[in-house]
Amino acid sequence: MKKEQLVALIKQKKSLLCVGLDTDMEKIPAAIRHFSKDPVFEFNKLIIDATLEYAVSYKPNTAFYEAMGLKGWESLQKTIDYIGDKAFVIADAKRGDIGNTSKMYAKAFFEEMKAHAVTVAPYMGEDSVTPFLGYEGKWVIVLGLTSNKGSEDFQQLTLQNNEKLYTEVIRKVASWGDASQLMFVVGATQAEYIQAIRKIVPEHFLLIPGVGAQGGDLDAVCKYGVTKDGGLLINASRSILYASSGNDFQTAAAAEALRMKSAMEKYLF
Amino acid sequence: MKKEQLVALIKQKKSLLCVGLDTDMEKIPAAIRHFSKDPVFEFNKLIIDATLEYAVSYKPNTAFYEAMGLKGWESLQKTIDYIGDKAFVIADAKRGDIGNTSKMYAKAFFEEMKAHAVTVAPYMGEDSVTPFLGYEGKWVIVLGLTSNKGSEDFQQLTLQNNEKLYTEVIRKVASWGDASQLMFVVGATQAEYIQAIRKIVPEHFLLIPGVGAQGGDLDAVCKYGVTKDGGLLINASRSILYASSGNDFQTAAAAEALRMKSAMEKYLF
Repeated sequence: MKKEQLVALIKQKKSLLCVGLDTDMEKIPAAIRHFSKDPVFEFNKLIIDATLEYAVSYKPNTAFYEAMGLKGWESLQKTIDYIGDKAFVIADAKRGDIGNTSKMYAKAFFEEMKAHAVTVAPYMGEDSVTPFLGYEGKWVIVLGLTSNKGSEDFQQLTLQNNEKLYTEVIRKVASWGDASQLMFVVGATQAEYIQAIRKIVPEHFLLIPGVGAQGGDLDAVCKYGVTKDGGLLINASRSILYASSGNDFQTAAAAEALRMKSAMEKYLF
Repeated sequence: MKKEQLVALIKQKKSLLCVGLDTDMEKIPAAIRHFSKDPVFEFNKLIIDATLEYAVSYKPNTAFYEAMGLKGWESLQKTIDYIGDKAFVIADAKRGDIGNTSKMYAKAFFEEMKAHAVTVAPYMGEDSVTPFLGYEGKWVIVLGLTSNKGSEDFQQLTLQNNEKLYTEVIRKVASWGDASQLMFVVGATQAEYIQAIRKIVPEHFLLIPGVGAQGGDLDAVCKYGVTKDGGLLINASRSILYASSGNDFQTAAAAEALRMKSAMEKYLF
């Protein structure tokens, strides 16, 4: 999906919402778990149907599917096929390896799986990132500053030049690809940092996890992060997927998605 | 596989050799590619049969299997099942995510896939690594210093305290788990660094990629890296798998594995 198409979706829906499909068999309503042949895909499909009006993007977290073995990969592929080009599909896979291996991962996610974007860890440097950049209409989303406690261990270390590691990562990675093919993950629990990151990458889209169950501040994120193109994809996973554990989970998911979209809308355009 | 078992394998075979199963459909001998139902598994099986006498470990690189979609995952699982406990199986997956997601990856690789070890990227910090440490007889192998050009981009940055990022990573990660469950990836193209790293982690096993096609120096690696338990797993992938592209690929792979094992042997015990 090219940048114009993504921006058109954002304008049409007046939303930056990305729904994280961290689908956990144990949290799926019992009725689906017991009576469907492929409960994970069935649940995803119902969540997508309920939220597509408010969401511009879906982000299946590959770990949740890999944990179910072959069957999980099948559910993941069916989910991605079901979304198609109706929304921007991010395979949240956090891959990254030496050049000839990253090339294989790019093939896996872009050619085989047909996701629009894949998340990549930066530790191995340039040749681990650039093999993902050669595909038209495909995106690489590199970890900048993550939303977990462990982000303090390395990302927040201060370098000899007084930069934090994560700002050095964002600055250097941004020199490898432009804003039509490269985004950054920036955790929303660190909303105060978004302003500073915008100075480094004024135009790149930022994928913001951690606004839902992890408790980031949606208003601050929008205030500092929104650009003329939208410029943000704001992810919520558990707070939407498991808004209700009962049979009304679709209505509850839609209501939570609408609540988030409404909070974003006023910052847009 | 517990540490005693791994050390027993090393002593019995007098080898530190790890064969990297980066199996690329396009490089498999034509006879297998055209006449087998599952050429990737068939090739792996023949390589394992040819090298098991000299190798203590096998390291399938998950990217090569993911790039073939569902069928690739099936070939990977069959390969791991075929090796069983005859050698130490490393899923070279370079995963890592926030706590609840890393827990899913641990489940995927240890419970579903039944690998003995998985490689993990450190960028997201402690809660991305520790969920892998709770399994008896299972190992996490964290990227320290990699063998690719891109390792200069971030791993070699100097911190305010004058440490390089990669030594800080190794030091900090080593405080999260002991030498019975934690290893580090250290690229062999950087053999001069192994001596320094041994001062930080005198007992931990190091997984050394980059000795074969990538051209690291096997003697220097052994000289500085070997411990009383062996302490190293030295990986070669392409130089063994594709030692010959003809029908004699098994003999050629065995010869190259024997050559490497023989070069290691004199440093052991």
